[in-house]
Amino acid sequence: MGKNHLSHLYSSESLSAQPSAIRDICALVARPEMRSLAGGWPDAASFPLAEIRRIFDELMAVRGAQILQYGSTEGLRTLRLKLAKRMRNEGVINAKADNLIITHGSAQGMHLAAQVFVDRNDVVLVGLPTYFGGPGAVRSRGGRVVGVPVDRNGMDTAALQQKVKRLKAAGECVKGVYVIPNFQNPTGVTLSLTRRRQLIRLADEYDLVIFEDDPYGELRFEGRRLPSLKSLDETGRVIHLRSLSKTFVPGMRLGWVYGEKGAIRQMVVAKQFADAATNTPAQHILLEFIRQGLLDKQIQDNTSFYLAKRDFMLEQMAHYFPAPVSWNRPQGGFFIFVYLPPGMDAAELYRRAVEHNVAFVTGQPFFVDNSGHNTFRLSYAQAGKEDIEIAIRVLGNLIKDSLPHPKIKKAA
Amino acid sequence: MGKNHLSHLYSSESLSAQPSAIRDICALVARPEMRSLAGGWPDAASFPLAEIRRIFDELMAVRGAQILQYGSTEGLRTLRLKLAKRMRNEGVINAKADNLIITHGSAQGMHLAAQVFVDRNDVVLVGLPTYFGGPGAVRSRGGRVVGVPVDRNGMDTAALQQKVKRLKAAGECVKGVYVIPNFQNPTGVTLSLTRRRQLIRLADEYDLVIFEDDPYGELRFEGRRLPSLKSLDETGRVIHLRSLSKTFVPGMRLGWVYGEKGAIRQMVVAKQFADAATNTPAQHILLEFIRQGLLDKQIQDNTSFYLAKRDFMLEQMAHYFPAPVSWNRPQGGFFIFVYLPPGMDAAELYRRAVEHNVAFVTGQPFFVDNSGHNTFRLSYAQAGKEDIEIAIRVLGNLIKDSLPHPKIKKAA
Repeated sequence: MGKNHLSHLYSSESLSAQPSAIRDICALVARPEMRSLAGGWPDAASFPLAEIRRIFDELMAVRGAQILQYGSTEGLRTLRLKLAKRMRNEGVINAKADNLIITHGSAQGMHLAAQVFVDRNDVVLVGLPTYFGGPGAVRSRGGRVVGVPVDRNGMDTAALQQKVKRLKAAGECVKGVYVIPNFQNPTGVTLSLTRRRQLIRLADEYDLVIFEDDPYGELRFEGRRLPSLKSLDETGRVIHLRSLSKTFVPGMRLGWVYGEKGAIRQMVVAKQFADAATNTPAQHILLEFIRQGLLDKQIQDNTSFYLAKRDFMLEQMAHYFPAPVSWNRPQGGFFIFVYLPPGMDAAELYRRAVEHNVAFVTGQPFFVDNSGHNTFRLSYAQAGKEDIEIAIRVLGNLIKDSLPHPKIKKAA
Repeated sequence: MGKNHLSHLYSSESLSAQPSAIRDICALVARPEMRSLAGGWPDAASFPLAEIRRIFDELMAVRGAQILQYGSTEGLRTLRLKLAKRMRNEGVINAKADNLIITHGSAQGMHLAAQVFVDRNDVVLVGLPTYFGGPGAVRSRGGRVVGVPVDRNGMDTAALQQKVKRLKAAGECVKGVYVIPNFQNPTGVTLSLTRRRQLIRLADEYDLVIFEDDPYGELRFEGRRLPSLKSLDETGRVIHLRSLSKTFVPGMRLGWVYGEKGAIRQMVVAKQFADAATNTPAQHILLEFIRQGLLDKQIQDNTSFYLAKRDFMLEQMAHYFPAPVSWNRPQGGFFIFVYLPPGMDAAELYRRAVEHNVAFVTGQPFFVDNSGHNTFRLSYAQAGKEDIEIAIRVLGNLIKDSLPHPKIKKAA
């Protein structure tokens, strides 16, 4: 039997689907000798182990049967009430539990949203660069993604408007915009308030859905928290996607979607056939964690924890990276994005770094137009100080070696 | 803001999606005074509460950080090795972990399989009647389902062949067959060995994929265990879907898919964008549960537990149901399917039963051709003895009252 002997029966989306480029890197990174700045996983040292252990034990002692039974497709109502309250505290007026579905992570939120809104050949606009969860979900529906440049203020809304106009004039069905407004993956940049308002206006003007993916927003190190697109949304066009992976723990696979009631109901129907319901014990543990006031404390702790790591990495970069290299200073989240001088290839740097047991993620896979060859992403989330220091030093030296005018004294 | 003001932007699948008919019933059934034979949920009295509580505590004590971290998309390798071993013990020669992906329940398994194999307008054949998870997943891809009669030996393979021939002759793209071979939901019937072999032959002859959904197979009360379609499959056409919801606990949302390597790899890619990975603690708890030899014991316990319930319900039915009503004697699983005399309407019976605080599920929603109006499904899985006895008596009386020649002495 051939390895792929059913491939002639695959769906068109499956035939064209590409695995996430990060997967191959992760396999490599699993090698114990590797100093990796690649993965976007949280540092397990930040997990509230004792609290989760205690909460599960207490729950099982008093109502284990309920904890382990199926739950409703939309999720535990008591938890949805708590999360709706959090949305109100974040400025979403009158947020209600009926506008909210609990999902297996924000990845599932985006997948369900794509199922509800994306038809074959529909166009969704995404950042250049962007995390590939959004494009992956759109493509899994046969939809297409078109890139819009991202600068230091986030997605360029003027460029967005031009793209939408041109696409609509060409007869394309433009359905929406996928945007990560806070500490974007991979660039770490935040969408400015002005652009948030412009994006909302453009969505109204051009009849678009906004898929607002916000897994990092609560991990803000500095600067003022900006209102979410959802809180600025007066016409119900924003589908707001959240994750508990960076503020609670990732292994529980918890997230939620907040949106207009009709769309949420459609997502509930889609989820019935996608996986029936979200893991029940995970929901109960989170609910107790919130009830006991631990989530806000956890978010504070995580913020300090990752701030220290960001600062340390920025220090090392300032020290070791040569002048023509530039990068941003993220106000939160996990990522720093690096620009090599134009013409320099981050993939070549990657190959040489791996020989020195250092890993990162090249930027190009985050660009849906296949550009960005001179960029790469660094994460300070998971690595320890020693690994960060050594990896940045190695990268700095490799970059110096590759510059058009190398130093006279090369490494022996 | 209108309730459905985004509906003009919905995908075509979303516009035509229907929520599961059972959902409305479940809302009704939640009323405390209701004696329900409706739901297909396991009885929480069967859950291994103490063992799960102990295992989680032990795991958290020694490697909590690992337990709560993201896992790989395909699932924990150690668990996949254990499950592959179970497949080998069930007659799937040389079953390997690489052929296996862990999913959020068998619902997700079918959803991923549909994503890999079903294009818009592709046809998948399903039982008349069938559980609607399969049809729901196919329709979520824009595929269509065509029904094939199910009799006491399961899906009628001769009728299947005729349907496939006719559909192919009409130029339809027939992609596969969705079948629940053991103690089918809703009929409780089992596909005979002869038909299993025929089904495999037909799949080879007509180039079809078989989606073998087997959540109940391990709960066999009597009779010889039949080989799975997967174990009879020499050409890799069977995608074998399994659930832990009926043998372990449903709230953990665990299942797996076993199939040809290329197709499994495609499902892994699809899962990356569907929800990234399966809940990690659930996988570790199950792995420990298996390692400690508890899963096989649990399956034995559950089998005895549900056998006693089946027998009790069959006794009550024999006592209270009038002669023109017929039903099957399931050799395992959760369900008994009831046929009222032709022309009698199970929906009318349902309305009257609810007035007496008794609930069940009408058969019609399980028939994709909208037939089956004289059928209904009873589940003995969740109800206690008293509820079963009273509910069956009430139903028997209501049916007697509805028969063309009612007894002379009607209930006062």
